[in-house]
Amino acid sequence: MITNYFSETTKTMKSSLIRELVATTKNVPDLISFAGGFPSPATFPTEILSKLFQEVVFQQGRDVLQYGNSEGDDQLKEEILKWENYPNLNRNNLIITVGATNAIYYMSRTLLNEGDIVLCEAPSFLGSIVAFEAVGAEVHCVSMDNEGIDLNRLAEKVKRLRDADKKIKFLYTIPDFQNPTGITMSYKRRYKLLKYCEAEDILIMEDNPYSRLNFSEEEQPTLLRIAQTELNNPYLVTEIVSFSKILGPGMRVAYAIGAPELINKMVSWQQKVTISPDCTTERVVAKFLAEGYMEPHIKNLCKFYKPYLDKMLACLSAEMPVYVQWTKPKGGIFIWLWLPEDINADTLFYKAKDHLVTFIPGSKFYPEGQERFNCMRLNYTYSTMEQIETGIKRLGELIKSIYV
Amino acid sequence: MITNYFSETTKTMKSSLIRELVATTKNVPDLISFAGGFPSPATFPTEILSKLFQEVVFQQGRDVLQYGNSEGDDQLKEEILKWENYPNLNRNNLIITVGATNAIYYMSRTLLNEGDIVLCEAPSFLGSIVAFEAVGAEVHCVSMDNEGIDLNRLAEKVKRLRDADKKIKFLYTIPDFQNPTGITMSYKRRYKLLKYCEAEDILIMEDNPYSRLNFSEEEQPTLLRIAQTELNNPYLVTEIVSFSKILGPGMRVAYAIGAPELINKMVSWQQKVTISPDCTTERVVAKFLAEGYMEPHIKNLCKFYKPYLDKMLACLSAEMPVYVQWTKPKGGIFIWLWLPEDINADTLFYKAKDHLVTFIPGSKFYPEGQERFNCMRLNYTYSTMEQIETGIKRLGELIKSIYV
Repeated sequence: MITNYFSETTKTMKSSLIRELVATTKNVPDLISFAGGFPSPATFPTEILSKLFQEVVFQQGRDVLQYGNSEGDDQLKEEILKWENYPNLNRNNLIITVGATNAIYYMSRTLLNEGDIVLCEAPSFLGSIVAFEAVGAEVHCVSMDNEGIDLNRLAEKVKRLRDADKKIKFLYTIPDFQNPTGITMSYKRRYKLLKYCEAEDILIMEDNPYSRLNFSEEEQPTLLRIAQTELNNPYLVTEIVSFSKILGPGMRVAYAIGAPELINKMVSWQQKVTISPDCTTERVVAKFLAEGYMEPHIKNLCKFYKPYLDKMLACLSAEMPVYVQWTKPKGGIFIWLWLPEDINADTLFYKAKDHLVTFIPGSKFYPEGQERFNCMRLNYTYSTMEQIETGIKRLGELIKSIYV
Repeated sequence: MITNYFSETTKTMKSSLIRELVATTKNVPDLISFAGGFPSPATFPTEILSKLFQEVVFQQGRDVLQYGNSEGDDQLKEEILKWENYPNLNRNNLIITVGATNAIYYMSRTLLNEGDIVLCEAPSFLGSIVAFEAVGAEVHCVSMDNEGIDLNRLAEKVKRLRDADKKIKFLYTIPDFQNPTGITMSYKRRYKLLKYCEAEDILIMEDNPYSRLNFSEEEQPTLLRIAQTELNNPYLVTEIVSFSKILGPGMRVAYAIGAPELINKMVSWQQKVTISPDCTTERVVAKFLAEGYMEPHIKNLCKFYKPYLDKMLACLSAEMPVYVQWTKPKGGIFIWLWLPEDINADTLFYKAKDHLVTFIPGSKFYPEGQERFNCMRLNYTYSTMEQIETGIKRLGELIKSIYV
């Protein structure tokens, strides 16, 4: 049996529960799905990108079809530095990776020993939790309120873990339009979190796939920016930024910004794992930025998505019974629902499938053993207005029917 | 210090010695380099690819810019299966990865525990050795003759390792136009190696970046093909095939073919590490195959490269003293030189730089502690005819000057 040859990590590795769940809903006719985390294909700038791909390969093919830098394409780095506009950062603070998950993986490999602790929000992005666990880390989550991670609980958790002689390496957070809750951390909470982590020697991995999908007038500085410009701490935060929700996730391009020593080791990992990201795609993104397409495109994206978010929020207000609560994000791609304690969304998932509507049960966004079950994640960026209306109606009726 | 946070593996991880060596030769004016492993940019099919990129993104943008399968693009898989033309293989035997190094990494993660043994040819591809070591494996190399790996020495090594209670997981081999030697394993050796590994329960990782760069009439079946069709063993061999030396290494697309159980676990790793390869690039390669560009392109490649290989071999005959020996490959991109035992190519490297010619010292292709020092690797695909002539002349004069 070839399975006898498998490494221990591989034998115990969990496959994506979300994937398996979503697979059970495949090929169900007329099913309305709020399950995925997919951007709308209608937002992909296909005409511009097809032109840029053609130009890049035709004009610079000898360069972009050759081996590229493991740290990422220099031209893309320059454009990102201009776009991000940090006073004290340069190319050495930057690595380009094959999507954001890839940066999360390299940073995890760079920092984590077997048994080390990663802290995260409860709930948090399953893909990251699974990546931390694949590296051998223990993941502990800390609950949130509507301003973000609860700092009192965080302090309690840190104390308890340290009393048990655990080594805490970093805190993983998604401060803007968090996956899965849609919650955005307040400025005050950001500042306090940074000061706390600085004092406690806990690094921060800031995952930022959604901050540009901001439909409001308000904008919070990233944790990285506060650390760099207000705390003058160049080591505390590493920010990971994805183009997936902006340009399209099929283009595997993201980047991490952080301390050169850390970035340099992430580059060493990239050299061993993929050698480099796809060079053509890197250069196309560089050109997209250089030729000024990015800002108007992001404006259009926000204009496109806002009505869908508004629609889903309005439908929830209209259809949900009073004992259901949900977040009211002003951007990102998810809404989070809290059900009464005695409704288990894992069970509800299968009933909902029979009612031709689907979502991800909230329990899937917690490390094993730390789950909450009376919650669910809804995505609104991959459905039509009609689907949102009908789907939320179906879901509301189903939930109401439980307490008949 | 942020370095205090680094994981043990990261602290002890070796950076690429080759990279560092090559860096010392940068910006030396008029230096002729036979060091890299770069294909000639003149061979890149930039016009066809630029057209295909444009078409794919314009016509299929909604699909290829969306999240793709972690196992790889279905259309590309179908085209690869047609191209490879195996009787009993299907999509489940196949994973598309971000270049071949990526497949090597996933297979290593799937199989290797800390301290497990990987066997390889002596010398072998440093990138793979470093990847095995990054996963915590011990790498042991076995010398070659002109038909490939020495089976008597292999058996001795296996016995010695097993007597020491070591767990041997797989043998890593590059049977066609090996990197760094250019040696192609004979059919007889292939068959015997397979029978031996089958009997000894040692899996085989067959790395195949070069078999299509074959300038001769002769062609050996891959180890995978012999295992599948002659030995009826579906588990023994996993083959890793790269498009880097055919289409251009900036396109990060490769694939592995093997047992579904193993491929499936490699997919789980890919899901955690990159989610998927770049979807646009995958589809472009699929189209390149589907529209019949591949076979004529490979013919042109071979026609293009053969004169450069012939030229370097002729120059070596003309310029090298009698006590220098070298391999005479009929394809691939490398030639290997043996110097007298008392000439150390690591030292020669620095002298050669002063003589404006460079190469990779052979010692860099052995696991640490198992080095041979009187050898070097030459690449002939990245130089002009004039550079080959002048560079080999410089090298010959330098070597001859040592015994004046």
